[in-house]
Amino acid sequence: MFGVTILGNNSAVPAYNRHPTAQIVTIHDQLLLFDCGEGTQMQIAKYKIRWGKIKYIFISHLHGDHYFGLIGLITSMCLLGREDPLHIYGPALLKDIIFLQLNAAATTVPFEIIFTPLTSDGVVVDEKRFTVACFATKHRIECRGFLVREKRKPRKINKDSIQNYHIPTAYYDRLKDGEDYVTKEGEVIKNEWVTIENSPGRSYAFSGDTLYDPNVAEMVKGVSLLYHESTYLKAMGDNAAKRFHSTTHQAASIALQAGVSKLIIGHFSSKYELLDVFLQEAREVFENTYLATEGATHRIQF
Amino acid sequence: MFGVTILGNNSAVPAYNRHPTAQIVTIHDQLLLFDCGEGTQMQIAKYKIRWGKIKYIFISHLHGDHYFGLIGLITSMCLLGREDPLHIYGPALLKDIIFLQLNAAATTVPFEIIFTPLTSDGVVVDEKRFTVACFATKHRIECRGFLVREKRKPRKINKDSIQNYHIPTAYYDRLKDGEDYVTKEGEVIKNEWVTIENSPGRSYAFSGDTLYDPNVAEMVKGVSLLYHESTYLKAMGDNAAKRFHSTTHQAASIALQAGVSKLIIGHFSSKYELLDVFLQEAREVFENTYLATEGATHRIQF
Repeated sequence: MFGVTILGNNSAVPAYNRHPTAQIVTIHDQLLLFDCGEGTQMQIAKYKIRWGKIKYIFISHLHGDHYFGLIGLITSMCLLGREDPLHIYGPALLKDIIFLQLNAAATTVPFEIIFTPLTSDGVVVDEKRFTVACFATKHRIECRGFLVREKRKPRKINKDSIQNYHIPTAYYDRLKDGEDYVTKEGEVIKNEWVTIENSPGRSYAFSGDTLYDPNVAEMVKGVSLLYHESTYLKAMGDNAAKRFHSTTHQAASIALQAGVSKLIIGHFSSKYELLDVFLQEAREVFENTYLATEGATHRIQF
Repeated sequence: MFGVTILGNNSAVPAYNRHPTAQIVTIHDQLLLFDCGEGTQMQIAKYKIRWGKIKYIFISHLHGDHYFGLIGLITSMCLLGREDPLHIYGPALLKDIIFLQLNAAATTVPFEIIFTPLTSDGVVVDEKRFTVACFATKHRIECRGFLVREKRKPRKINKDSIQNYHIPTAYYDRLKDGEDYVTKEGEVIKNEWVTIENSPGRSYAFSGDTLYDPNVAEMVKGVSLLYHESTYLKAMGDNAAKRFHSTTHQAASIALQAGVSKLIIGHFSSKYELLDVFLQEAREVFENTYLATEGATHRIQF
């Protein structure tokens, strides 16, 4: 399973029972949390997310609608007796904010909090089956987007061709990793003669908050699923630029430029009660667009 | 109107769709917020509380279920363009916590935040028609309860007896304030001959978190309405003491000792799904008890 569950789709001031940004990415039985607006722990309970499985938390930036729920989530993890280490990635100042509050409450923290300040673009998590990288976006304050890439699976043994060579089966794992085989006589059996490529890894990109920035399209090129903020409708381009946010058309244009397979838009301004027009407008530019609907899970396809 | 609206009645980890502590006290068209757990701004929206009217916020202590919603509420007030000063009372460290986060977001704060650290017992707000005092409670960390006292109304002119004296009507306001009248001839007309006492002011006490402490009964003696935490059922006295909380019987016993008119209990532990038994147990000791039900408003009677 590789998919994303939307816990909040609203920007800034809560409205119409929509919640601020938070998303759970499930990848091979591990859970990653992207942003954690106020009330995220209630949304986690509502949608029956398994708290204990959240190993990584990524905070895009220090506007409250992206992280005010973090301290409550951590505190509840403490009260519930979590033992596994928790990895948090975000702007450097977030560490002070967390520990000032944990200390003020004299909180007993029964697990290790491993905080990594984000300072430059690149891979920040390198797990066996996936990586997470971050990239800077253009927002009113320091902000980052994130990119989860499933690692390409090992190559498959080509059962037809491998019969032509005498390769010990004990060596098959190294073939799957892409190595050539050299016989005792010094003959090289090229890897591609006896293996075939497996399906490529899937990928998910989370834009963070950003004004329209073609560089984001470069960073998320070809991903399977892109979440891009779309705070405003297309007519509000001036407002969007002024507030370092994007419109429907801009989000969809990034998806188009990046050649992604599917787009989700969210972070809707509280001025809009109805969201259908967001979908209509984005689809004018990029057909395979969906709204970030709270509670919905989007499976990421090969 | 003098009353309290319950926005959250749960302790610590959210459960059963109950929210952490927050209460709005309405007194003569002014709103006071007592504690502000995570999600309070959503509860304020849900129960159609008029944000702009909140002039005073009181935070009992720095456990997260009593204040993690404060920074989100303040931030939303900023985004909504509040202009009136906001008065916040709480433990000294709360100021650092607020401003660290406002600064991290480069928040524009279009109104004055007047923070008063609570350091000792006594009156902290003295308004024309009411006062707010605080008192220390016994909890795992520094914690306070609060007491809102409506000021006694001016005395009323006794229309029957005043006819017997020649007192200029211009002097009536001073009579209402309790002064005697002295005639030109030096004769003293005693105030109580010509005025009668008005109804006494009503009062509301909010316990904060506390273990069973007879001193709290002293502090809230005779109030019209007492909210006292009751985290546990009566059988859990040991647990309550260990965690610096109270049981149903303890809360009701404080109400009885203090001779209050009515008791509300809340701050229920997340271990309890059903709350009826809280009510039954408390009423064994103090009959006029009610559960803190989210969204309910209790008018405070003379």
